[in-house]
Amino acid sequence: MLRLFTTLFLCFTLFFSYSQEEDALVIKSIFNNILEKSVCYDWLDEMCTTVGGRLSGSDAANEAVFFCKNKLESLGLDTVYTQSCMVPVWHRGDVEIVKYANSNITLAATSLGNSLGTGSGGLTAEVIEVKSLEDVKSLGTDAIKGKIVFYNRPMDPTQLSTFNAYGGAVDQRVYGPSVAAQYGAVGTIVRSMTLKKDRIPHTGVTVYTEDVTQIPALAISTMDADELSANLLKSPVTLYIENYCKNMGQRESFNVVGEIKGSTTPDEIILVGGHLDSWDIGQGAHDDGAGCVHAMEVMHTIKAMNFVPNRTIRCVLFMNEENGLVGGKKYAEISNNNKEYHLAAIESDSGGFTPQGFTCDGDTTHFKQMFSKFKSWEDIFSPYGLYLKKGGGGADISPLKSQKGLLIGFKPDSQRYFDYHHTRTDKIEAVNKRELELGAASITSLVYLIDKYGLSE
Amino acid sequence: MLRLFTTLFLCFTLFFSYSQEEDALVIKSIFNNILEKSVCYDWLDEMCTTVGGRLSGSDAANEAVFFCKNKLESLGLDTVYTQSCMVPVWHRGDVEIVKYANSNITLAATSLGNSLGTGSGGLTAEVIEVKSLEDVKSLGTDAIKGKIVFYNRPMDPTQLSTFNAYGGAVDQRVYGPSVAAQYGAVGTIVRSMTLKKDRIPHTGVTVYTEDVTQIPALAISTMDADELSANLLKSPVTLYIENYCKNMGQRESFNVVGEIKGSTTPDEIILVGGHLDSWDIGQGAHDDGAGCVHAMEVMHTIKAMNFVPNRTIRCVLFMNEENGLVGGKKYAEISNNNKEYHLAAIESDSGGFTPQGFTCDGDTTHFKQMFSKFKSWEDIFSPYGLYLKKGGGGADISPLKSQKGLLIGFKPDSQRYFDYHHTRTDKIEAVNKRELELGAASITSLVYLIDKYGLSE
Repeated sequence: MLRLFTTLFLCFTLFFSYSQEEDALVIKSIFNNILEKSVCYDWLDEMCTTVGGRLSGSDAANEAVFFCKNKLESLGLDTVYTQSCMVPVWHRGDVEIVKYANSNITLAATSLGNSLGTGSGGLTAEVIEVKSLEDVKSLGTDAIKGKIVFYNRPMDPTQLSTFNAYGGAVDQRVYGPSVAAQYGAVGTIVRSMTLKKDRIPHTGVTVYTEDVTQIPALAISTMDADELSANLLKSPVTLYIENYCKNMGQRESFNVVGEIKGSTTPDEIILVGGHLDSWDIGQGAHDDGAGCVHAMEVMHTIKAMNFVPNRTIRCVLFMNEENGLVGGKKYAEISNNNKEYHLAAIESDSGGFTPQGFTCDGDTTHFKQMFSKFKSWEDIFSPYGLYLKKGGGGADISPLKSQKGLLIGFKPDSQRYFDYHHTRTDKIEAVNKRELELGAASITSLVYLIDKYGLSE
Repeated sequence: MLRLFTTLFLCFTLFFSYSQEEDALVIKSIFNNILEKSVCYDWLDEMCTTVGGRLSGSDAANEAVFFCKNKLESLGLDTVYTQSCMVPVWHRGDVEIVKYANSNITLAATSLGNSLGTGSGGLTAEVIEVKSLEDVKSLGTDAIKGKIVFYNRPMDPTQLSTFNAYGGAVDQRVYGPSVAAQYGAVGTIVRSMTLKKDRIPHTGVTVYTEDVTQIPALAISTMDADELSANLLKSPVTLYIENYCKNMGQRESFNVVGEIKGSTTPDEIILVGGHLDSWDIGQGAHDDGAGCVHAMEVMHTIKAMNFVPNRTIRCVLFMNEENGLVGGKKYAEISNNNKEYHLAAIESDSGGFTPQGFTCDGDTTHFKQMFSKFKSWEDIFSPYGLYLKKGGGGADISPLKSQKGLLIGFKPDSQRYFDYHHTRTDKIEAVNKRELELGAASITSLVYLIDKYGLSE
């Protein structure tokens, strides 16, 4: 458990009894400390404005590696290091045009990650609108061949969690271009993955299966998608597409790791992490700069409050979550090779919004008892409005499942996340300082309890 | 209780048994309906952009009265009407200057409501910084006379609810100028009531007691307050203030009321409301345009879903909450004269953010049993992340306490509220459509339950 040597606001004795009331006081002091003296917002502001968007494989991504490594080194941790991994290099190109053919009316568009470009000749073809991958398969090659397939199934607004709404629609972006190509389409446009009606297109990864000819794939804004759909009801529509995306092989990049060695049980690791890469447009402020600075703030606060953890607390900033998960896989591979054990891994990759709770998942071996312990802390968190329940951990930590620890996802309010997700507006201005800080305080508090009590019943 | 004749999404029989499962289905259908087909955001957008800021006593406030009356009339309610009341008229004037004397360095400032103006001569005086009303009293006339008193006690960032932080600091704005005047000050400037560090000044009401000479009173931005405080540590500071505020007597304005008569128990009224007036700067989008359209959306949804309530559901948009509460008092006076009984009154005046719950208060006579009934619905609301607990109702509905019904406050997330509160940035752009809709759905669901079950144990 965390032993408290000194705190800045409350006087505890060195050997205080570990009652729930005292836990409540420690957690209140964690919140106070972060709400008064955090670094997370300033660090995020600095990373967003000096490094900006940082797609893995770009120079900016590697600048972000060294930016975060330097910040962690400034905290006086026991060790800070990087882990090398080879990431894909994809260039967007400078020009992205989608317009009605023989017209000057453009649609707000952005290429999907992995898309090929049309090159300078552009691409002109008739549009066929579909609502699903199944629609394309049903229509078949006769209807699809030579066309631009337009995936236009909106996210479901009745889902309370916007992540559920996203999960119900994003197959169109991830697999739509590949499926369309299988049936002879020459290009794909996808309705942007957001519930907001505006003119801002949302990028994101698309995946081509090996058996298909890659075709240009772009997202258009929701308002442009609605207008295009309305136009298609009136008469056939031909679009002109021009973009210059290129896949350029691989390049070395890095995970960043900072660690405080456990004082009594160092072989049990508690990981806090987010992903360091982002899309190239915008600044990756919520996705996932917020998760990175959440994890870094945990380390800052442990040091600032002179906590000495029993278990090893490790901050991991993963590379290449957006288009490959290379960093997450590499981290787990090295950890397994070193025969490490992650008692718990907490990922923050849902933005820097007001916290609502944590969900957890894990291998069935010990999950029941670990979940029971986790759930026992619900009363401590209820004054902060935080739930503790079963659910997803996170993409980057998922390869750690075989170590049979608890995989925990931090869950902030999701309502605004997809207003900014993968767009040029995911900037520091979209992040509220207090909301970000409350997330860091929630995660630090959970780390404190896991470190103190472990996860055995 | 609400009888459901038809719904747009679920098939219920006319005489369904009133189990909790069925309540859950009805509430889900309320949320679905509002998330798919609400009018609240569009109406708020229209009011903000066509009417804008609407300080009571202004032409804009009376335009807002007729805007909302027209919207309510479009819903086919049983009755829509206005209630006349006399409100104060205060003019801000066009020029508001606070600057370091003999310098061009200005401080971002805005006059407080009720402030007098300096007129064209301006006011130049030395500044004395204090942290509280008590400081002024302790310093006494010798130190205060002829000075500009600068109240600079920040809101407490460690409060989880920003309303609590506001409550702990706002006495400086409300009573500070009057107290300073009692000790001979010639002007007052107050640190803006926000936790955010920026250059945006926050207005709000100040109250002069009858025994004092009114003096000019302005708020300055938090960053300007910090800089002024730092400058005062170095050497004495003289400021120049110029503004042109005027109190101009009274004028007629109105509450707006729209009602659906109860089908079986019409004498029991369930009120939903917000306040129609706002400050003159900005558009009053969160404060309290959001509360108005929340209440209006309840009425729209009841009609759209063909609910026929047993009790009378009344939407009330109160005038003059910001600087007098004339509308709230007038409404209660008329209601008492008519021997009405408000079983429950729900006020939304905390912004259009993601809902977190409801708090309630009431006269002690029946409070225990009413609270017990209210609290029994917690399980129904928990999938929506909503708590039900004791706490404040709201300013406008507080004069109804003598009717001994339940006074309920809608509580959304408070973290961003004081970024915008009483500023030029409280505009429609600061409101997220889904967050606003979730608030309307939460309130409509509570109205449904109170109407169906009443508040007796």
